Amino acid sequence: MQNAIRLGIIGLGTVGTGVARILQHGADQVAARAGGPLEIARVVVNDPTKKREVDIDPAVLGTDALEVIRDPDIPIIVELVGCPGGSVEPARTWLLEALRSGKHVVTANKDVVAKHGTELLRTAGEHGGSLYFEAAVAGGIPIIKAISEALVGNRIDMLMGIINGTTNYMLTKMTQEGAAFGDVLREAQARGYAEADPSSDVEGHDAAYKIAILASLAFETEIAVDAVYREGITRITPEDIRNAAELGYVVKLLAIAKRNGEHVEVRVHPTFIPQSHPLAAVNDAFNAVFVHGDAVGELMFYGRGAGMMPTASAVVADIVDAAHNLRRGVRGRHRINGRRTPILPISQSISRYYINTKVVDRPGVLAAITTAFGDNGVSLESVIQKGRGQDPVSLVFVTHEVQEANLTRALARIAQLAEVREVSNVVRVEGETHGRDY
Amino acid sequence: MQNAIRLGIIGLGTVGTGVARILQHGADQVAARAGGPLEIARVVVNDPTKKREVDIDPAVLGTDALEVIRDPDIPIIVELVGCPGGSVEPARTWLLEALRSGKHVVTANKDVVAKHGTELLRTAGEHGGSLYFEAAVAGGIPIIKAISEALVGNRIDMLMGIINGTTNYMLTKMTQEGAAFGDVLREAQARGYAEADPSSDVEGHDAAYKIAILASLAFETEIAVDAVYREGITRITPEDIRNAAELGYVVKLLAIAKRNGEHVEVRVHPTFIPQSHPLAAVNDAFNAVFVHGDAVGELMFYGRGAGMMPTASAVVADIVDAAHNLRRGVRGRHRINGRRTPILPISQSISRYYINTKVVDRPGVLAAITTAFGDNGVSLESVIQKGRGQDPVSLVFVTHEVQEANLTRALARIAQLAEVREVSNVVRVEGETHGRDY
Repeated sequence: MQNAIRLGIIGLGTVGTGVARILQHGADQVAARAGGPLEIARVVVNDPTKKREVDIDPAVLGTDALEVIRDPDIPIIVELVGCPGGSVEPARTWLLEALRSGKHVVTANKDVVAKHGTELLRTAGEHGGSLYFEAAVAGGIPIIKAISEALVGNRIDMLMGIINGTTNYMLTKMTQEGAAFGDVLREAQARGYAEADPSSDVEGHDAAYKIAILASLAFETEIAVDAVYREGITRITPEDIRNAAELGYVVKLLAIAKRNGEHVEVRVHPTFIPQSHPLAAVNDAFNAVFVHGDAVGELMFYGRGAGMMPTASAVVADIVDAAHNLRRGVRGRHRINGRRTPILPISQSISRYYINTKVVDRPGVLAAITTAFGDNGVSLESVIQKGRGQDPVSLVFVTHEVQEANLTRALARIAQLAEVREVSNVVRVEGETHGRDY
Repeated sequence: MQNAIRLGIIGLGTVGTGVARILQHGADQVAARAGGPLEIARVVVNDPTKKREVDIDPAVLGTDALEVIRDPDIPIIVELVGCPGGSVEPARTWLLEALRSGKHVVTANKDVVAKHGTELLRTAGEHGGSLYFEAAVAGGIPIIKAISEALVGNRIDMLMGIINGTTNYMLTKMTQEGAAFGDVLREAQARGYAEADPSSDVEGHDAAYKIAILASLAFETEIAVDAVYREGITRITPEDIRNAAELGYVVKLLAIAKRNGEHVEVRVHPTFIPQSHPLAAVNDAFNAVFVHGDAVGELMFYGRGAGMMPTASAVVADIVDAAHNLRRGVRGRHRINGRRTPILPISQSISRYYINTKVVDRPGVLAAITTAFGDNGVSLESVIQKGRGQDPVSLVFVTHEVQEANLTRALARIAQLAEVREVSNVVRVEGETHGRDY
């Protein structure tokens, strides 16, 4: 029997509790896979006297994270505190401190990895330690391992993900029940699925952090969170969702990263995707990441992106990787390089668009609008008029691919037309599948 | 610059050509990920003079596999010959020979891994070598790595996969076009998607090999290919597919492995799955594996299960894993143990069923059939009569969960009823999703 590897766990909230449960109940399996037993040697909490939903020996509980991080008998640090109050501190300091002493460090902290991933990975590299962060993106879905290890023979061209469960739950409800955004949000808040301040989810911040991490890994470059273009779902109406269905689409909040020549595009926004696209069937709080690699073609990874046990599953996989590497004296496989591939300004990005306008129903209005589109290089795939004889009527357009700057110019002119009451919404259309090219 | 690791590739057919392409065109990326350059040092082919679709130095070509395997300067052997003619030899001998000398061995050979995986892994373990076989199941989908590494914190309860692209292509065609099995098969053969002798695909043999490998890994036990219950898709009719659609299902050839108490169930058969199930949207030649783990919940992996470049993507990932491990002096992570979990006899398996009967349309027939079901403990979820006034009419039943032995007894009695012309098909129904329990 080998000596147990001693783990220091910082944080015993939801995910920490799940991790402790797996390490206790699945101890034999985890030991077999990790090459020897693991021991929860130290657990850092705010209040050691608090009643816990997992059976932890009170003697291992403490309140001083740095003491545990500096303990030379603790080679693996598992940081599960997150960023309460939105600050990356003290988590960043803890992670850096652990990495500077060459430890294997596991974290589920998407904020710190997104904002300081390069610094953390560089520090790990300089001191012989390793950073593992599977749980930081898409919970139980092993997308980090897939990108870092399984797809090494590929140039990844594109990632497209549903990586925020709360908004996917809300959009699913809106789609299935025809409900309005505000009503679904209130219900989600009442059930505890959405925060009292929902902006991190519904404005796309959470998804932006996660796609910054995925894009950085997939494209081997550093993508700053602030450089991610971001639109939330607050302006999506039941009318948009009905129009999407009629046109053969589903509305999803997608996080998209694409290579585009020497640039990359990284953006989060509501998106019309074809009903036949694999992402269209990802409902409720499920997450999925769709990847295109030049060799492997289309891949999709689907599962639970949050929750105690799915997230704990990812953390434990990282702990086992870390223990495995530690026993063999080798390092983890996440790489950085100093590159900073330029990000394409959103005005230069190319997409198809859904555009909903409210117009006065009289002869010539369609000609005026289509002329404005045509003059700005926007070609149309389809036009639908809804509510004939009412005032206003809806004219719904789907464009072919167009640069955003051209679309913006066209829409500015259209908004000034006398017959146009408003351009009520504009949503990107993505996701042509290649499912038939067997 | 480190010395290049010298690879010996046995077989330069479709997959071998794809692997050589990636290793050539993606050499820099592969070297970065593998911790140093890789060199295609030796390639074994039948005919060194044959024109190839990839640029290989004629000096590295040879015809003697064992010579390459025994070359002490070739630490990684990549076997891509498969089992022409259906024999595991000489591939098995080659793999064993390479593993006995402690080499890292990559194979895409599902037949050998399914039939001799335990022997190969044991040999690897005894001699300090490693076996990698991601490409043996589901082509470019990294399901082996997911089970072996990403899900180590889970007890995997169930795997359910669409892992034969040819039959999924055929069933998709039958569903979308209402075409008959024979017509679709002829078309698939004409296009080269199906073999002249299609039995490996349409009778479920190919899927049985693959699920035996996946179940052995997921349940850490040895599952013999012969122990996999197997039904093909030859008896599925356009009528069954229409009935499925009407009842809210899609027909797929599923490979299923489930824990059931102290037993495991491993079976391949056509299956009705709900249209809302993630597997239902897997069309054409795509593969997908749906997994349930006790911590992670539901996961699905979707992608191309065959083809030159997707399969090569998986082989290259294994080569990089092998090179990475070799440089660090460590072994691969696939485990075996001596266990042999008993397989549940199919007669004791529990499933729901679709049953299509042709009966004479007269009073009492439904009562006679439902009595036969009830007397044998089969309870019904739904009954539909089709073709009222014709002779015969169809009576279509969907049962609740029932043990197969009970169903078989009920069907034997029903087949003998005077009013029953025939029991024209019986298909299992699986895949209740738990998508709403956020």
